[in-house]
Amino acid sequence: MIEERYFEEYKLGAERRTLGRTITETDVVLHAGQTGDFYPHHMDVEWCKTQEFGQRVAHGTLIFSVAVGMTAGAVNPVAFSYGYDRLRFIKPVFIGDTISARVMIAEKREHKRPDHGMVVERLEVVNQRGETVLACDHLLLVRRSSRSAEPETGTAGAVGLDRTPG
Amino acid sequence: MIEERYFEEYKLGAERRTLGRTITETDVVLHAGQTGDFYPHHMDVEWCKTQEFGQRVAHGTLIFSVAVGMTAGAVNPVAFSYGYDRLRFIKPVFIGDTISARVMIAEKREHKRPDHGMVVERLEVVNQRGETVLACDHLLLVRRSSRSAEPETGTAGAVGLDRTPG
Amino acid sequence: MIEERYFEEYKLGAERRTLGRTITETDVVLHAGQTGDFYPHHMDVEWCKTQEFGQRVAHGTLIFSVAVGMTAGAVNPVAFSYGYDRLRFIKPVFIGDTISARVMIAEKREHKRPDHGMVVERLEVVNQRGETVLACDHLLLVRRSSRSAEPETGTAGAVGLDRTPG
Amino acid sequence: MIEERYFEEYKLGAERRTLGRTITETDVVLHAGQTGDFYPHHMDVEWCKTQEFGQRVAHGTLIFSVAVGMTAGAVNPVAFSYGYDRLRFIKPVFIGDTISARVMIAEKREHKRPDHGMVVERLEVVNQRGETVLACDHLLLVRRSSRSAEPETGTAGAVGLDRTPG
Amino acid sequence: MIEERYFEEYKLGAERRTLGRTITETDVVLHAGQTGDFYPHHMDVEWCKTQEFGQRVAHGTLIFSVAVGMTAGAVNPVAFSYGYDRLRFIKPVFIGDTISARVMIAEKREHKRPDHGMVVERLEVVNQRGETVLACDHLLLVRRSSRSAEPETGTAGAVGLDRTPG
Amino acid sequence: MIEERYFEEYKLGAERRTLGRTITETDVVLHAGQTGDFYPHHMDVEWCKTQEFGQRVAHGTLIFSVAVGMTAGAVNPVAFSYGYDRLRFIKPVFIGDTISARVMIAEKREHKRPDHGMVVERLEVVNQRGETVLACDHLLLVRRSSRSAEPETGTAGAVGLDRTPG
Repeated sequence: MIEERYFEEYKLGAERRTLGRTITETDVVLHAGQTGDFYPHHMDVEWCKTQEFGQRVAHGTLIFSVAVGMTAGAVNPVAFSYGYDRLRFIKPVFIGDTISARVMIAEKREHKRPDHGMVVERLEVVNQRGETVLACDHLLLVRRSSRSAEPETGTAGAVGLDRTPG
Repeated sequence: MIEERYFEEYKLGAERRTLGRTITETDVVLHAGQTGDFYPHHMDVEWCKTQEFGQRVAHGTLIFSVAVGMTAGAVNPVAFSYGYDRLRFIKPVFIGDTISARVMIAEKREHKRPDHGMVVERLEVVNQRGETVLACDHLLLVRRSSRSAEPETGTAGAVGLDRTPG
Repeated sequence: MIEERYFEEYKLGAERRTLGRTITETDVVLHAGQTGDFYPHHMDVEWCKTQEFGQRVAHGTLIFSVAVGMTAGAVNPVAFSYGYDRLRFIKPVFIGDTISARVMIAEKREHKRPDHGMVVERLEVVNQRGETVLACDHLLLVRRSSRSAEPETGTAGAVGLDRTPG
Repeated sequence: MIEERYFEEYKLGAERRTLGRTITETDVVLHAGQTGDFYPHHMDVEWCKTQEFGQRVAHGTLIFSVAVGMTAGAVNPVAFSYGYDRLRFIKPVFIGDTISARVMIAEKREHKRPDHGMVVERLEVVNQRGETVLACDHLLLVRRSSRSAEPETGTAGAVGLDRTPG
Repeated sequence: MIEERYFEEYKLGAERRTLGRTITETDVVLHAGQTGDFYPHHMDVEWCKTQEFGQRVAHGTLIFSVAVGMTAGAVNPVAFSYGYDRLRFIKPVFIGDTISARVMIAEKREHKRPDHGMVVERLEVVNQRGETVLACDHLLLVRRSSRSAEPETGTAGAVGLDRTPG
Repeated sequence: MIEERYFEEYKLGAERRTLGRTITETDVVLHAGQTGDFYPHHMDVEWCKTQEFGQRVAHGTLIFSVAVGMTAGAVNPVAFSYGYDRLRFIKPVFIGDTISARVMIAEKREHKRPDHGMVVERLEVVNQRGETVLACDHLLLVRRSSRSAEPETGTAGAVGLDRTPG
């Protein structure tokens, strides 16, 4: 469960999928309690009946956090999470919806630290109807293997050509 | 607590700050339980002693979720959250650290929907030592007031000049 | 969010209302877990079917605690909570009911500390059918502003005349 | 665990005590999450350092709810909770304090329903230093046994003489 | 609530029953969060529809833990829990099922510590349809009273004759 | 994460280990809340000071449940959990202890269903001092691959010879 995986070992276009998880009322209530966000969109059944969706909507940060957790696999001690880009809440997730996540290696970039590279994982969360509800790009800073401490010039360009639509 | 606030009413550079909140061991354990991320970085005191920081680190998604929750003020029925850009985990947050958040209106942009504009809120999370630990740009799609359904051409340009370094 | 508000600034009859919140099964289960009260009235669907209400009832302390939390607004550093009087559980709250709270300044009293006065906030919790389910009087001990450290004799009397039926 | 106990069976002055329970940081964080009360008095270690007590204080509603839960014994199907009077937060409870509760039958009163009587249980919460931190009067409406459906006139007077200082 | 009860005081065949408790979605989600077991059997409504039971099943460890908790009565300072034998998950427990527990003193055995004996409590968990869903044998090591520090040879034999079918 | 693994594929003596997890005060408080077991051994710091261990002890069912959760790997659709034997609480686990689990295939047995076999996984939980704190035998009923639907007579005997000391 702890596996070193170097920059060179991330394959562009490689994809993995998680199992599913149903977002429950419990998840929404616990997330409100953890974050202090008790907006009526998440907490007030009666008010929601008067709104566009007619029912409570899960917090965006809940779906994002659960999705990130779902994709946590083996610990990679030579990588660390740099951040996220273009996090988008594409469709609402309702109580009772079941989500799963798909992660694809969408891009590999040079980084100013010559012994590291940036891996961009495209994360998409899909519901039980096959609709994408959330998407984001996860930026992973990953050490290069000792064999290739020299920046592999050209790699970024090649990656650019292969760049997934992500 | 429900207040309509139109695109025109968001003032570039306006800033607000939240109260503080201490991130506790409970928060970390609950977040692991909510997300399923039981990585040793968050859960294993002994393993953490052997790592760079020497102690458990809060999940990035926890700090992000709490910060977003802390900044939740009045409900604005004419705005909705579009997503986040450039979410960065700048420094680790340890158990016992106290964070607060600062939100600044960093940018106002035209949007393809002519009756809406995009407000960019720059969110920064600061710890008790004054260090910024997380930053991101919150994208809010906000309706224009009926008086100005016509796009205010030039606004974006003016905003561009004023654009905060964010 | 931290605002000094002195005894003189509380206006008799002033009223505020909170947003709504649906009481969920999660709330009841968490409250049982927090308090250790696993009475079948709250926890046993089958037993409840044999009782007057036919379904589980939320703990009185849950509704009271949530209502107090819902009414928490700005922090007033010159006031502190002295206690509650006449807390009454008027009607049962069922899982799925949506409650909101109404707070009215019902009375202002002299207090033996001459530089403080007692503000009585009447708290009423209402469900989605407009029924009052819980009521109590919140006693707030509030500092007088420096300009009026002398007890305003006569105020209590005037308040008495105006006293709301509560 | 379900035991019928009629009005006549409550003995004035009878007293019982609960086991102890330590109020933990977890309890405070969970109570904030349940109620939405994230006041810095409970949640912000740094701010608390600047205040009178120098540390976080448990929510009054937490201590009240836990105390009520601690005193829950056998279910009495012929009694129901009418409410609470004179709930007072006498001293702060800090994280790590251990509380226990003491319940005494302080008063028995006539009630307008002739086949019921009101039992007043005096509840006191004590910390590990023997200090009373919370007190209240619990009002229990209890059915009279069939043998004594007639109001026992005079009982209230006798109780008045015995009335505890509460 | 703390009552000394010696080996000799446990009566073979004595039985007690608990109140009921409904296993909720909240219980399952909290147990997943506590244990990290997010298997789709417990968490994924859609996947469960494709399986034999057609719905989510509670974790075996949840039912076991709740049942053990339900049977916790008075603290016996002269007994301690040695372990469990033959823990069997006999039928699935679904969300919404109501369970109660039955404990019978099934066996009393000599123990190598002459001043202690082993009490075997047979624990059975029953659902609202009267079906046994879980069974196990709880081993309690209990001190003998000072009057009978000598092993009561023959007791085990007698117990063997009386041994419940368990 | 869903992988079919037949009876024949379980190798006697094969062993795997989990990452570690620190048992926190939060875990203990949440487990009390989930199970209703608020015994002072787990909840009352002051009482624990007067006892043998001098501090709070985690619930046995907590350690068992967490350990089972930690060992949950890929879902095996052709196996199901039959139960546990010889569950023993060998040493107390204190708040702050870090546990990990070790699972070994200790035995393979014939089962009355000819197309299934019983796999016995020996589960041991170890703390940060290398002490075994809990042990049990997990019984897994696993389908035989279609190629060997005939019982492999003699296997049990061979297994008996190899049987690990467990």
